[in-house]
Amino acid sequence: MTETERLDAQMAFLHEADALKAVLRATKVGAGRHENSAEHSWHLALYVLILAGHAPVGVSVDRVIRMALIHDIVEIDAGDTPIFGAVDTTKQADDEARAADRLFGLLPAEQAADLRALWDEFEAAETVDAQFAKALDRFTAPNQNLLTEGGSWVDYDVTLERLENRIAPPITRSVPAFWSWLRPKAAAVLARIKK
Amino acid sequence: MTETERLDAQMAFLHEADALKAVLRATKVGAGRHENSAEHSWHLALYVLILAGHAPVGVSVDRVIRMALIHDIVEIDAGDTPIFGAVDTTKQADDEARAADRLFGLLPAEQAADLRALWDEFEAAETVDAQFAKALDRFTAPNQNLLTEGGSWVDYDVTLERLENRIAPPITRSVPAFWSWLRPKAAAVLARIKK
Repeated sequence: MTETERLDAQMAFLHEADALKAVLRATKVGAGRHENSAEHSWHLALYVLILAGHAPVGVSVDRVIRMALIHDIVEIDAGDTPIFGAVDTTKQADDEARAADRLFGLLPAEQAADLRALWDEFEAAETVDAQFAKALDRFTAPNQNLLTEGGSWVDYDVTLERLENRIAPPITRSVPAFWSWLRPKAAAVLARIKK
Repeated sequence: MTETERLDAQMAFLHEADALKAVLRATKVGAGRHENSAEHSWHLALYVLILAGHAPVGVSVDRVIRMALIHDIVEIDAGDTPIFGAVDTTKQADDEARAADRLFGLLPAEQAADLRALWDEFEAAETVDAQFAKALDRFTAPNQNLLTEGGSWVDYDVTLERLENRIAPPITRSVPAFWSWLRPKAAAVLARIKK
């Protein structure tokens, strides 16, 4: 593969990546509209950078930032799956694996394999890096809901108990202090919107 | 400063950062609407990650990714400045410096100083890291215009000569191959939209 062919392949991937800006999430931005997965990916990478000092021993912050940048790229083909929505998880996993094949497959082979391995690691959530990335991914959405007086919690009729069951475990597995920080603030917003 | 106070300060910064999703750029996304500076920052960081193999000797890719994540954060207060628009550059620099004071100033002091230094380095464009970041920042906008059959080139009546004068130098200073790749594609789009 020549240098020009490498650049052609990489630019095809980067042009395709633009489509992530059109994938909408359940969460909302402060201005009130739905958030897209590209700006969410930026915000998540910034969470990793800013909150790095709270990461468990052994976490490689720069690897986690790279994970954050690509963690949602499969949504270009597979769409976003709201955490409190009804989901066929087997179909979702199949769709996302097919999307990863196609999208990373646009890149030169060695780079495709490296980034696919990083995405697979994120999805498996078994390493400390992936668990820190997943914790912050789960942490971003409730924080958007703090900014928007409930945001997607209103739309999905979410309770503190559902947060305790679905959101708290992946956060506390990596950094318990993030959930301790969030819980009273989420409880206060939920109490106001349930009135 | 206690751990909780550190986290409070960091979360205040991360909540404030949400506002970058409401800052619109001259460029457009593939779907046709104007791009915001948060999704642009994600795309730029992804350009750095994907095109790292073309970087000049001595570039630290992970430092440049960090630069990309914060390079436009000052636009929350100072707004975006279209490269082909009429701009009071002294006022813009003052506004951005004030924005950097306020925004990074939300963070714990040591972290604020580190990120401010990284942003100042990007702005000065004197190190190889900053020059690679600037080259890719300049490279993203014309690529959005390739995706949107001219995009902001139509709105600002841009010619190939203006691209040669304003866009090519910061790109070729770091990676000449990026401009060689772009030039004929930009020329073809410009020829079509000038008809």
